[in-house]
Amino acid sequence: MSRMRHSRCTGPMTRHYTPIKTNDKNIKEMYNFEFKNPVKLIFGKGTIARIAEEIPARSKVMLTFGGGSVKRNGVYEQVMKALAGRDVVEFWGIEPNPKYETLVEAISLARREGVDFLLAVGGGSVIDGTKFIAAAIPYEGEAWDIITRHDAVTKAVPLATVLTLPATGSEMNNGAVISRRSTHEKFPFHSDLVYPRFSVLDPCVTFSLPKKMVAAGLADTFVHVMEQYMTYPVDARVMDRWAEGLLQTVMEISPAAMSDEPDYDTMANFMLCATMGLNGFIAMGVPQDWATHMIGHELTALHEITHGVTLAIVLPQLLRVMRDDKHDKLLQYAERVLGITDGDDESRIDDAIRRTEEYFHSLGIATRLSDYGVGQNTVDEIVRRFTERGAVWGERNDVTPDKVRMILEKAL
Amino acid sequence: MSRMRHSRCTGPMTRHYTPIKTNDKNIKEMYNFEFKNPVKLIFGKGTIARIAEEIPARSKVMLTFGGGSVKRNGVYEQVMKALAGRDVVEFWGIEPNPKYETLVEAISLARREGVDFLLAVGGGSVIDGTKFIAAAIPYEGEAWDIITRHDAVTKAVPLATVLTLPATGSEMNNGAVISRRSTHEKFPFHSDLVYPRFSVLDPCVTFSLPKKMVAAGLADTFVHVMEQYMTYPVDARVMDRWAEGLLQTVMEISPAAMSDEPDYDTMANFMLCATMGLNGFIAMGVPQDWATHMIGHELTALHEITHGVTLAIVLPQLLRVMRDDKHDKLLQYAERVLGITDGDDESRIDDAIRRTEEYFHSLGIATRLSDYGVGQNTVDEIVRRFTERGAVWGERNDVTPDKVRMILEKAL
Repeated sequence: MSRMRHSRCTGPMTRHYTPIKTNDKNIKEMYNFEFKNPVKLIFGKGTIARIAEEIPARSKVMLTFGGGSVKRNGVYEQVMKALAGRDVVEFWGIEPNPKYETLVEAISLARREGVDFLLAVGGGSVIDGTKFIAAAIPYEGEAWDIITRHDAVTKAVPLATVLTLPATGSEMNNGAVISRRSTHEKFPFHSDLVYPRFSVLDPCVTFSLPKKMVAAGLADTFVHVMEQYMTYPVDARVMDRWAEGLLQTVMEISPAAMSDEPDYDTMANFMLCATMGLNGFIAMGVPQDWATHMIGHELTALHEITHGVTLAIVLPQLLRVMRDDKHDKLLQYAERVLGITDGDDESRIDDAIRRTEEYFHSLGIATRLSDYGVGQNTVDEIVRRFTERGAVWGERNDVTPDKVRMILEKAL
Repeated sequence: MSRMRHSRCTGPMTRHYTPIKTNDKNIKEMYNFEFKNPVKLIFGKGTIARIAEEIPARSKVMLTFGGGSVKRNGVYEQVMKALAGRDVVEFWGIEPNPKYETLVEAISLARREGVDFLLAVGGGSVIDGTKFIAAAIPYEGEAWDIITRHDAVTKAVPLATVLTLPATGSEMNNGAVISRRSTHEKFPFHSDLVYPRFSVLDPCVTFSLPKKMVAAGLADTFVHVMEQYMTYPVDARVMDRWAEGLLQTVMEISPAAMSDEPDYDTMANFMLCATMGLNGFIAMGVPQDWATHMIGHELTALHEITHGVTLAIVLPQLLRVMRDDKHDKLLQYAERVLGITDGDDESRIDDAIRRTEEYFHSLGIATRLSDYGVGQNTVDEIVRRFTERGAVWGERNDVTPDKVRMILEKAL
C-alpha cells in the first residue's frame, strides 16, 4: 500500500531524497529535494481573454465545468468570447469531490469527439476531475487504475485552467483527488503529465462566491500550509518564513474576504496564497504531515462534508494529540504567526491551538463532528479503514489508527 | 533604447501587464503578471552525481569553467566521475563578469566540436557566460547582437548548471550579464531559451569559498531582494512577507556564513536564499527598482569591482536619495525586517538605512568609492553614459542621471 502513503502534495512536485526516519527527533538538517513546477500563471484583472493566445489554434478543446455558477458570474461568457470560432465541446456537471462515475462520461465524450486539449473552468474539483480525464483519455485499461496503479499514467492530453475558487492549489500542481460514489472512497493521484500548461487567475471572478465557499477556501489554504510547516524543525529558514508569511496573510485578509463586498487586493492576495500554498514553493527540504488531509478525505467520502471544513474539524484535535511531536514548531508558530509570547511553553502551545480553532470559527466554520451529524460509528469506520489499509501518516509516520481514533473522538 | 530599460530581472520571467506609471504614487493594487519558471532544482548533499541521469546520454557536452577553483575543491572530480565515458569537451577560463572576448572563443570551440549540451560548473559568471554561449552557438550574425538586439535569440543549445557560489540567482532564471573588455561595457540580456534545464545545488561545495566571495554573495542576494521589495506598496502581502523572509534569513545566517567553519544548514539556507532571491518567486505583481544594479554594473565595467560589492556601495546612498519615493516601504522594512519601532517616521528610516549600511560593513565590505580608489572622474563618466543612453531606472522611472550623480557623490 505504499502508493497510499503519498498525499496529493508529497508527490513528484517536490521529491525528498533523504528518507524521513520514523521517531527520529534529532533530524536537524534540511532534506535533499528536487523541485520543478512548469505551470505558467497568468494573473490579474481581465486575463481570461488571454486563453485565446495560449491554447493552440487548431486544438479540439473540451471545456469542463461544475454546476453552472460560471454562467451567472460572467466567467462562461468571457471564456466563450475568447474562444469564439474555435472547435469546442462542453462537459457540464463535475461535482464537488469529483466522482469517478461522472468523469467516465466526460472521458467517453472526449474520446468520441477527438478532443486534444482540456480547459477546466472552475474550482479545485473541476480541475482535479479534469486532470483525471486528461490522464484517462489515452489510457487503455480501466480508468480507476490511474488511482490505484503507480505506473498507470504514461501520457495525458494537455490541460489548462481558468480558476474560479481559490482553495485547493490544483491550478499549479500535479495532483488530484478523486472520489468513487459506489464505494464512498476518496483517493489522491499524481502525475507530472497533469500539470496545467497554464492557469488563469483573475481575482475578479471571486467576488460572487458564496461566503461558505470563501470560508472553506481560506481554511483549505491555511491547512495546506500547516501540513508543510507544522512538523519539526530542520533549520529550513526560508521555507519557515514563507509558510509563516502565507499563514499571516491568510489570517490578515480573512475578515475582508468574508465581508459583504471584498476588495480586489484582498481577493488577489487570497488567490495568490491558495496557489502558493500548494505548488511546492514552501515544501523544499522540509518534512510534511498530511494526516489532517487523509482523515478529512474520509469524512468527505462518508458524509460529503466540504473538504476545507473537514480540515478545520481535524486540525485542532490533531495538534492536541500530536503536540509533543510538534512541540518546537508549535512554539515557533505561536510566536511568529500569532504573536503569543507570554506564559510557559505549554500554555503558549495551548493558546496557539485554541486560537487556530477560533480562527476557523471566525470563518463561520463549526469544528465539531456533531455539528455535522457525525458520531461514533463514523469514527469506528474511519479507524477500520486506516487499519485495513495499513496506512500511517504524519511527518514521523506515527499517526497510527489509534491516534486517528483519539483525534476524531476529541472532535465528536 | 527601450532594451536598456530592462535589467536582468525584469525580463520575461515575470512580465507585468499593467504599466508602471511614472510618478503615480497612488497605485495600490497588485499588478497583473505572468509567471513561469521551468528550471528543475536538484538540491542537497551528494547531488552532483545526479547530472549523469539528467543529461541525455548521447549528448556531446561542453563543460564550462572559471579559473580552476573547482579542481581544488573536488567539484571537477565529482562532475567528471558522473560523466565518465561520455563525450565531453572542456572550456576553461570564463572570468568574473564574463567577457565577450572570452566567450567568442568558447562559441568557436563548441561549433567546431558539434556540442549539443552545455554544463556550466561555477558561479554566476560561468553560468551567465554559458547562457550567452548557448544562445550564440546557433546564431548566424555577430554574437554581440544578442545583447543589443531584442529579437536576436530564436534558438539556443540546452544548458544546465552545477552551482559553486550562491549569489546571482542565474541558476534559476533566464538572464545573464555580459561585459565587453574593449569598450568597458556591461549589459544584461534575457531569453526564455536560456533557462537552465536543471541546476544542481550542493551546499557542501561552498565550504571552501573565500570569505570575500561569501560576503559578496550575501550582499548580492540581499540587494536582489531589495530591488523587488523596496519600492512602493501595492498591497502584495505574500510577496512582501516572502521578500522580508529572505532578507531576515540572509541577515540571520550572515555571521555563521562568514565564520571560519560554516555549518551545512547555514550554507544550505544561503544557497536557497540566493536562488529564491532572483527566480521570479518574489516578483509577482510588484513594482521593481533595479537602479542599484544598473549603477553597480557601471562601477564593475569601469573598475572591475566585484558585483556584490558595487551593490553594497550604491544601495545605502540610493535609499538616502530616493527616501521620499520609498517612504512607506522603508518604514515597513524598518519594522518587519529590522525590528525598529521607536522614534518618528524619519528617524526610523534613518536607522533602517544606517543599519543596512552597517550590515554590509559586518560582511567586511567597505561602502565608499574612495575605498576602491574611485573618484569624481568615474562619477562624471557614469552620469555621462546614463545621459547619453537616455536610461532612467527605479520603480517610477525617476532615477534620472541627476539622481545618479547625487547617489554616487554621496558614496565618494
